[in-house]
Amino acid sequence: MAKMGMIDQKVLQMQLEAMQAVRMVVVENLFMVMYDLQTIGEKNNGFDVLYHNMKHGQISSKELTDFIRERSTIEEAYARSMTKLAKSAGNFSQLGTFAPMWDTFKSSTEKLAGCHLDLVRKLQDLIKDVQKYVEEQAKAHKKTKEEVAPTLEAVQNIQSISQALQKSKENYNAKTVEQERLRKEGATQRDVDKAGVKAKKATETYKSYVEKYATAKSEFELKMAETAQRFQDIEENHILHMKEIIRSYSQSVEETHVQIGEVHNEFVRNIENTSEESLIQKLSESKGTGKERPGKPLQGLS
Amino acid sequence: MAKMGMIDQKVLQMQLEAMQAVRMVVVENLFMVMYDLQTIGEKNNGFDVLYHNMKHGQISSKELTDFIRERSTIEEAYARSMTKLAKSAGNFSQLGTFAPMWDTFKSSTEKLAGCHLDLVRKLQDLIKDVQKYVEEQAKAHKKTKEEVAPTLEAVQNIQSISQALQKSKENYNAKTVEQERLRKEGATQRDVDKAGVKAKKATETYKSYVEKYATAKSEFELKMAETAQRFQDIEENHILHMKEIIRSYSQSVEETHVQIGEVHNEFVRNIENTSEESLIQKLSESKGTGKERPGKPLQGLS
Repeated sequence: MAKMGMIDQKVLQMQLEAMQAVRMVVVENLFMVMYDLQTIGEKNNGFDVLYHNMKHGQISSKELTDFIRERSTIEEAYARSMTKLAKSAGNFSQLGTFAPMWDTFKSSTEKLAGCHLDLVRKLQDLIKDVQKYVEEQAKAHKKTKEEVAPTLEAVQNIQSISQALQKSKENYNAKTVEQERLRKEGATQRDVDKAGVKAKKATETYKSYVEKYATAKSEFELKMAETAQRFQDIEENHILHMKEIIRSYSQSVEETHVQIGEVHNEFVRNIENTSEESLIQKLSESKGTGKERPGKPLQGLS
Repeated sequence: MAKMGMIDQKVLQMQLEAMQAVRMVVVENLFMVMYDLQTIGEKNNGFDVLYHNMKHGQISSKELTDFIRERSTIEEAYARSMTKLAKSAGNFSQLGTFAPMWDTFKSSTEKLAGCHLDLVRKLQDLIKDVQKYVEEQAKAHKKTKEEVAPTLEAVQNIQSISQALQKSKENYNAKTVEQERLRKEGATQRDVDKAGVKAKKATETYKSYVEKYATAKSEFELKMAETAQRFQDIEENHILHMKEIIRSYSQSVEETHVQIGEVHNEFVRNIENTSEESLIQKLSESKGTGKERPGKPLQGLS
């Protein structure tokens, strides 16, 4: 009974580990990947969480492409509208003192359109880069899926052994309870012995599953640690790559912002530098008026 | 004949002034307004040039309203597209390590939309100011039209006198040539005298128009100088007012540009500050995984 008690306690501990929340953390280079065995024996387990997280990485990179493409479309529409506005400014009245100002508006608005078209070109190039990454990522994930197949086997193995362990424990409990009942009720020694044989067999089976579980658990932990590291590297590279793309996106947006600022400053300078005098001067030239007051004696006449 | 020669020379000078390009410049405070009498006697003259130039000022301010309104429409469309893009980012997959990044994209894109909507509001306010100016300008021009009516009369007066002067000169030439011809051909003294009376009468008429022209010219110059100054002031104020509006427009565009820069910098900061670790941390929290490695002895079990 003392031996049984010992096994029972050890098994109880393993049961708790297997049936309750069994949680594992791999800490590596400050980057952590957790896998969750809380729902062991059900479809959704720690391996699936990590595997699907990897697959979500593909959705993320596709969505980032969508975001950049949509931003590019918006910038293109803005540039087109600006080109139209520049044309409007160019078609405004060429009459009157203010008229030459429209050249400044037209030229500045055209340049603004140019800045945004420049951004569109950069974003289109970036989209090509992201699409390349999406393809590489899909290939890498396919390769990983093949390579982590033994881990999936180890997961399925520990799941089935865990179920068998539970079943053998129930059988062991039933058989020892049955033997105890017969003894207490004063059954024949033959029946008690027969129950004893069954209880002993159940104990052996139970013990063998405890050992199998321990082996499967070691194998599972080893494989899972490798795979967790693998998923961790993939995830780390994915985020780094995504951040690289966002950095490139941000840099293009930033460059355009600086260009727009320059175009705007030039516009302000041109407006400020266009004096009333110079506008009147232009009007005078366009009207062909001279600068002499009439009434002076004309040359050749005394 | 000596007297005639003198008149002839003086008249010739006036003729040259009136029929050739008669140009006038009023120089005042470095601001010049020219009026052109090149086409005197035709519909289009110096007064008309200045008067229509004033009227073109109304077209300019209306066109500036159109320009700002169109820019506002473009900014509004851009803001709407940005709001839509922010919603897209908000609807992107909430699964995977990258997912929390979309919050940064969403929030930054919403703020960008806000910057452009802010510009739309400022431009709408500015449009109201410009429209007020357009109304004031129309009133001021109407008042000016009434006040410069005497100048228009002086212009029409010099135009008609100039024509009469030309006609009387031709008549004077014809009559003196006729008197000379009769004398040379040895006509009767009676016929020569009769022609002499006609020539004398033509000379008197011609002389009277030379005087009338001189008076009309003085009057015209006086009135035209006043009116030129008037148009000059209007033109000067118009350009200054237009530049004031453009300055306000530029300031709003500039403020928005600065805001956009801040939003962008915040976006870059947020992306850089979102570490791989923090993303994994968030994933762990969302999946409810713990941080303890299984296999340690559980509490309460020896």
